[in-house]
Amino acid sequence: MNQRPVIIDTDPGIDDALAIAIALFAEELDVRLITTVAGNVSLENVTGNALRLLRFFEKEVPVAKGAAQPLIAEFVDASNVHGKTGMEGYDFPEPDMSLLLEEHAVNAMRRVIMESPEPITLVTIAALTNIALLFAMYPEVKRNIREIVMMGGSASRGNKGVMSEFNVGTDPEAAQVVFQSGVPIVMAGLDVGLKALVLPEDSEEIKNMGKTGDMAWHLFRRYRGGSFQTGLKMYDSCAIAYLLCPELFTVEETYVEVELRGSLTAGCTVVDLKNYLHKTPNAKVCTDIDGEKFRVWFRQALAKCI
Amino acid sequence: MNQRPVIIDTDPGIDDALAIAIALFAEELDVRLITTVAGNVSLENVTGNALRLLRFFEKEVPVAKGAAQPLIAEFVDASNVHGKTGMEGYDFPEPDMSLLLEEHAVNAMRRVIMESPEPITLVTIAALTNIALLFAMYPEVKRNIREIVMMGGSASRGNKGVMSEFNVGTDPEAAQVVFQSGVPIVMAGLDVGLKALVLPEDSEEIKNMGKTGDMAWHLFRRYRGGSFQTGLKMYDSCAIAYLLCPELFTVEETYVEVELRGSLTAGCTVVDLKNYLHKTPNAKVCTDIDGEKFRVWFRQALAKCI
Amino acid sequence: MNQRPVIIDTDPGIDDALAIAIALFAEELDVRLITTVAGNVSLENVTGNALRLLRFFEKEVPVAKGAAQPLIAEFVDASNVHGKTGMEGYDFPEPDMSLLLEEHAVNAMRRVIMESPEPITLVTIAALTNIALLFAMYPEVKRNIREIVMMGGSASRGNKGVMSEFNVGTDPEAAQVVFQSGVPIVMAGLDVGLKALVLPEDSEEIKNMGKTGDMAWHLFRRYRGGSFQTGLKMYDSCAIAYLLCPELFTVEETYVEVELRGSLTAGCTVVDLKNYLHKTPNAKVCTDIDGEKFRVWFRQALAKCI
Amino acid sequence: MNQRPVIIDTDPGIDDALAIAIALFAEELDVRLITTVAGNVSLENVTGNALRLLRFFEKEVPVAKGAAQPLIAEFVDASNVHGKTGMEGYDFPEPDMSLLLEEHAVNAMRRVIMESPEPITLVTIAALTNIALLFAMYPEVKRNIREIVMMGGSASRGNKGVMSEFNVGTDPEAAQVVFQSGVPIVMAGLDVGLKALVLPEDSEEIKNMGKTGDMAWHLFRRYRGGSFQTGLKMYDSCAIAYLLCPELFTVEETYVEVELRGSLTAGCTVVDLKNYLHKTPNAKVCTDIDGEKFRVWFRQALAKCI
Repeated sequence: MNQRPVIIDTDPGIDDALAIAIALFAEELDVRLITTVAGNVSLENVTGNALRLLRFFEKEVPVAKGAAQPLIAEFVDASNVHGKTGMEGYDFPEPDMSLLLEEHAVNAMRRVIMESPEPITLVTIAALTNIALLFAMYPEVKRNIREIVMMGGSASRGNKGVMSEFNVGTDPEAAQVVFQSGVPIVMAGLDVGLKALVLPEDSEEIKNMGKTGDMAWHLFRRYRGGSFQTGLKMYDSCAIAYLLCPELFTVEETYVEVELRGSLTAGCTVVDLKNYLHKTPNAKVCTDIDGEKFRVWFRQALAKCI
Repeated sequence: MNQRPVIIDTDPGIDDALAIAIALFAEELDVRLITTVAGNVSLENVTGNALRLLRFFEKEVPVAKGAAQPLIAEFVDASNVHGKTGMEGYDFPEPDMSLLLEEHAVNAMRRVIMESPEPITLVTIAALTNIALLFAMYPEVKRNIREIVMMGGSASRGNKGVMSEFNVGTDPEAAQVVFQSGVPIVMAGLDVGLKALVLPEDSEEIKNMGKTGDMAWHLFRRYRGGSFQTGLKMYDSCAIAYLLCPELFTVEETYVEVELRGSLTAGCTVVDLKNYLHKTPNAKVCTDIDGEKFRVWFRQALAKCI
Repeated sequence: MNQRPVIIDTDPGIDDALAIAIALFAEELDVRLITTVAGNVSLENVTGNALRLLRFFEKEVPVAKGAAQPLIAEFVDASNVHGKTGMEGYDFPEPDMSLLLEEHAVNAMRRVIMESPEPITLVTIAALTNIALLFAMYPEVKRNIREIVMMGGSASRGNKGVMSEFNVGTDPEAAQVVFQSGVPIVMAGLDVGLKALVLPEDSEEIKNMGKTGDMAWHLFRRYRGGSFQTGLKMYDSCAIAYLLCPELFTVEETYVEVELRGSLTAGCTVVDLKNYLHKTPNAKVCTDIDGEKFRVWFRQALAKCI
Repeated sequence: MNQRPVIIDTDPGIDDALAIAIALFAEELDVRLITTVAGNVSLENVTGNALRLLRFFEKEVPVAKGAAQPLIAEFVDASNVHGKTGMEGYDFPEPDMSLLLEEHAVNAMRRVIMESPEPITLVTIAALTNIALLFAMYPEVKRNIREIVMMGGSASRGNKGVMSEFNVGTDPEAAQVVFQSGVPIVMAGLDVGLKALVLPEDSEEIKNMGKTGDMAWHLFRRYRGGSFQTGLKMYDSCAIAYLLCPELFTVEETYVEVELRGSLTAGCTVVDLKNYLHKTPNAKVCTDIDGEKFRVWFRQALAKCI
């Protein structure tokens, strides 16, 4: 089978952990590199978490550590949602330090992208600091990127600030660099993330899916992205779902820009669905998701993990 | 019956015309003054339209002309929605010039407010330029204003720009002055305006409601706020509906501020429903409307006109 | 002699007091109205101060009270410079309340301007709130304004903030309205105000110039706009000096706009002397003053007072 | 002699060429690396120019190529000042390509800084894009940087825009990252650059100083930073002068921040000499220079070149 080569840029994070699980065990994907960036919690913690997940899943994917803070904006984490360590609720093994590259994430991404005969897909489920640095340092990589599939942004309201989604709002300038980069972008933001829910009956089913299911169940009990009873929001899995099952999504090609100057709206993704700005589309925006089908897909995808 | 005294600040405008019709014939309301402001079309046109409506409805309400342009922002009208004159599609009588006051709208509002033994309700269905000038000139009027019931703003996306609603986006600085004024505010914006629809079957029924129905039907054929087939948006009637039938609405007390500095989001009403900003609520925001009940109410309300 | 009719818009203020003194006793000027606005201290205090000055000078000029705060910006006074009352250091007589009009300053300005057969010169030595309101309410007055001679702004650094001069920085939006109004403007800002100095030897000479000299000397001892020893800055007298003795100034016609959006530079007057912005000039900017000649002129002008 | 190790980050550029000449032949300095960045002209041109200069001066300093454009801002060069190639007016030898590293400038800077037993001084005479990337990628380098001596910024007006100096205004976000980095900074901006003049009599003397003098003379005839007759502005040499002869300068420790949000003032360095912002100083700002002594120093320094 022809696997699609991907790099995952991430800040695990509970919903990152589930997205990574699915990606690692999806036979359609070849995860070549995992890069980390400060976001849900500190760079040290998210890097440790990525290495813990790999040992847990018994997978040997190299990990490279990236930016410890946003380009310009002040760093504010989301430990209120994911717990202080970022993946609280389950007793993970120690990180597999042998997988940690000495290279900076940005240099590692460049190497993997430039060495690949096939264009690479970047799956970004965190603030876009590393990707902005990659494009600033090595614009030549753009030629060998197939597309960026991003969990981030919102066509309406936010979840970090009134009008800003967490990943974009954490580093608005980086997100703007990415949206202005000319690289094909799929934006799977809050418009789908808020509807990509795991319900209590899903959790009960997942609980019994081997050790991954057990781990997921424990994290779900602790996760504060939504509520266990009314639905847990699987933001990051939307990016993986788009790769594996794009028919779950309604997609519109449109122009997206990030507000950098508002005193109340900095980090707002301005998604110009009605073409007020008369600009050429630069992104495919996922405007809707079939929540029922997502639940089915999510359970089936998790069932493939160990 | 104890009538509620109101001043209507308006820029007719097709949906303004309907809202004014309902207000003038609602026995619960005493329309003491109509003030005009540039918005849907020019100040001259909207003032002429207000005076035409009064002759058409055979009502003797004084009219005062207000601001010809926004405080700071460049003036851009909505003649694409309402036609060049602002009320195209019907052959109105000539304006009743005897109703036009010599006073500036701001001075007239002050006089009516200060002379009233009972607090006045301001119904604003246009850009808030006049109200901002009123508060800047005569802050003492605030004491005798019961509340401002405003058609304007949005808790999510816009209809003038990507993130700005027409009335607030036309004069963002004025709207900010009003939201910061300390006067009680009810904001009925796009969150309800987009769902306050007149459907084809309503139009057919309205068509036969005397001369107002005939006039409405002709305007509806020409109106570009929505489509005749899928639903015409009665934005401004939401403000009147709130006064007469508040149970149609879901309302949340929250803090609202207008973005003045964004390069892409100026004029966005930042409606802090989740209290990210830790501010004291300054508005009751209509977050939802029962669209079916609104249609019934709207037809019944119009049926009371001549 | 053909006197030039002027309206003085002011917030006395120690340097305002001196400028008003000179204007009232200059035979070339006919002061038709004094309007007040919050600035150096509160509206109540500056209005009282204007009325005190008129009684002190035994002049019967009508006074009208204007705006109590800036259009949008938060009000921050300069009582650190002028003392709590705005004119501390001298025991003034009680205000002459008979001179206080009932009309709002904006309505009074409109009346005086529209009734004058000759165009009126507006001398603004305070925040531009009243003038912005005047233009917003009554754009027709622009036709009968000869020019605005303004103390305000700076072509380089500020004295209210790092990059904002006090009068413009107190109400940046109002200043922008004025600069964009199309009315001819002379801007005498910090570029000349910082060099319009009264030195100790001037103060000694002024001290003996009748009761005005005595009053001035006492205010000078208290004034914190510069230092008694190294030079007291007569900002507001620059506007009067321009009217009476324009040859003191180097003037350049240029485009000026007020920064409204900077997080650190709001209120900065962007004076485009090198035409980076490719706009048509909208102001004559006083870029330099002959400080020695100013001192002579100032002493001679004060000597004409009682 | 104990030489001070420096890295020069540059975009030659005529005045860069002179500054590099002086640095290369100053026995007090050990130029360990030259890094290039888009600015005066394109990255390709400035890199070629750096390599041409090294062949011309017969010096073997490694060169590393950096960022091809600013972090966020649109790139606008200064070919109007320096000619299309950036160093027009003299027929330079071909670039010495053997000196060009394969490493990106940011990686090269990191290596040189981390390998040095002695802290490195960064001399930045260009937009600060590379330095911002360095700090974003490798914050650990800050520990081994002695200080940044920067040509850039202004305490008053600009030379790229009304309020923005060229190097800071070319990449305001990068400059802000540098000013907020915590690394000791010396800012030698327009406040000294505009007074660091080469007069015609200096040019005549320099003309006869061997091949460097001849080269300088030809560039001076072409340079549009000032005028040959009234004085050519040696902006970049100010940074080198500060290293070699700090007594030429008046210096104030103060807080500096870059305006990123102004619609007219973006890129303005807000130099808080009077402490309006109540922040801790983060830079030594050169507020004045002794222009006469600078001319003597400049001629003597150039005389040391081949």
